[in-house]
Amino acid sequence: MNLKYAVIGTGAIGGFYGGMLAKSGKEVHFLFNTDYEYVKLNGLQVDSITGNFHLRDVLAYNNTSDMSPCDVVIVGLKTTNNHLLKTLLPPLIKPDTLVILIQNGLGVEEDLAKDFPNLNIAGGLGFICSNKIGPGHVAHLDFGKLTIGTFQNNNPAVLQQVCDDLSQAGVPADIAPDLNVARWKKLFWNIPFNGMTVVLNTTTDKLVQNDDSRALIYDLMLEVMHGANHCGAVISEGFAKKMLDMTISMTPYAPSMKLDYDNRRELEIGYIYSHPIQAALASGYDMRKVTMLEQQLKFIQQSYL
Amino acid sequence: MNLKYAVIGTGAIGGFYGGMLAKSGKEVHFLFNTDYEYVKLNGLQVDSITGNFHLRDVLAYNNTSDMSPCDVVIVGLKTTNNHLLKTLLPPLIKPDTLVILIQNGLGVEEDLAKDFPNLNIAGGLGFICSNKIGPGHVAHLDFGKLTIGTFQNNNPAVLQQVCDDLSQAGVPADIAPDLNVARWKKLFWNIPFNGMTVVLNTTTDKLVQNDDSRALIYDLMLEVMHGANHCGAVISEGFAKKMLDMTISMTPYAPSMKLDYDNRRELEIGYIYSHPIQAALASGYDMRKVTMLEQQLKFIQQSYL
Repeated sequence: MNLKYAVIGTGAIGGFYGGMLAKSGKEVHFLFNTDYEYVKLNGLQVDSITGNFHLRDVLAYNNTSDMSPCDVVIVGLKTTNNHLLKTLLPPLIKPDTLVILIQNGLGVEEDLAKDFPNLNIAGGLGFICSNKIGPGHVAHLDFGKLTIGTFQNNNPAVLQQVCDDLSQAGVPADIAPDLNVARWKKLFWNIPFNGMTVVLNTTTDKLVQNDDSRALIYDLMLEVMHGANHCGAVISEGFAKKMLDMTISMTPYAPSMKLDYDNRRELEIGYIYSHPIQAALASGYDMRKVTMLEQQLKFIQQSYL
Repeated sequence: MNLKYAVIGTGAIGGFYGGMLAKSGKEVHFLFNTDYEYVKLNGLQVDSITGNFHLRDVLAYNNTSDMSPCDVVIVGLKTTNNHLLKTLLPPLIKPDTLVILIQNGLGVEEDLAKDFPNLNIAGGLGFICSNKIGPGHVAHLDFGKLTIGTFQNNNPAVLQQVCDDLSQAGVPADIAPDLNVARWKKLFWNIPFNGMTVVLNTTTDKLVQNDDSRALIYDLMLEVMHGANHCGAVISEGFAKKMLDMTISMTPYAPSMKLDYDNRRELEIGYIYSHPIQAALASGYDMRKVTMLEQQLKFIQQSYL
């Protein structure tokens, strides 16, 4: 089965995963925004720890109305742009299309399903350090594995094929048995490190080297653990230890929210903080320090936005 | 009874209260550090909302060994310098000397009493916005009341006389029936506003104008309330509301910790955060958001100190 792919939001995430698929010979149609003219002229450059590569003839678009329906739509947008999906998606959808939201946070699939109740929807969790470092230019710094979990899907064969295509393209990929667990697991890292690098204007390495901030990072992870457990995603403390150790051994990194802050862009507070906080609260657990981080981030964002 | 005063630490606090006493004709001996030469030559300037004044002939010293015993020693040092008191105080002490620590936080009197078990000790809480704005130059911006509470004192008449002297000098002053309650009440303001202005690099007015930071400030106050109540200082939620309303109506202000941070000086984390956190924890209450603020402050301080 030769799947036809579309990538909406060709940045650090969409550019890398879509780029790897295109490099391996898959048909990938890329939606660009500000980079459209540049990529049409110059192609797409990916600097990857697995080997740099350049895609010269990219199937590039700046409007989904110029695109045709695809088997798989990979959404790599910032969640702050998810309100655009209602108008961006329809030209790309046919009855069996699978939309994979490779995005941070909790609740993105629920919200998409409200607008597209019959759509096949999956969530993708990229365990990857990658940044967009220029027009049509992505840097892949560390890790890279993509975990995909079903939200609602009556065509599981396509999902398996996506994993196979990714693996063949050199991207480790697997299917999560429980998307809720997978999303909460990713929050173990995203909640402490995204917010703390912004509030303390620093990088991940500094946070795990200092005794006090490392203790706070761990406290935040444990709150996420309790929040997850209350929401039916059973994850043990060993996973928090693993995430902390992983970060200690990791390349110094500015998470996506830190880059958004440095560039005075809107922060993904809603899906990374507010939604998990509300979900945990509704299940009877108050993530107090996580809420404090959310409050600090909202103050910071309001100061420039 | 004509009391002889000494002021140790002639900055925003010692300079204002000592200056007001000297202006009213009291004998006040001032210990200076870096400002000594300047004040010897130029005197002490206080710009006060109650009227500016200049003290030309100041009884100025740069070493307590050149000073003689006094009836009252007003300590206006930053608590980060309290380790110096063991050597600074002895030349100023006679059997009935009263030492008043006009300092922020919790536990300063306990720690002083460890070194001077028989000393008369009181704590002073200045509800004042004042800053040192130059050598021998203090700006008094708002409020000013001094509340003094006994820690250990076998000469209550002196304490009453100090209050009378201050009132006569134009400084509203009263005696707190319970120093523990008075110190915790002051922490209602100091804990949220000192730390939050540093972590979010802002001023009090911005924090109370933004909905999220104002909610967080109030959360922090409620944690301090629960901590206080567990430590035997019964204070109701109405006091938190009062402190918040007071700050909303207050002149925009950078608390002392924010000035210390801006000047890359050591922050008073120990007595304002760590000691109250430990005291509450020992009494069975975990001030979680206050602890997060302490952890963030320690990270920030370590980045420059």
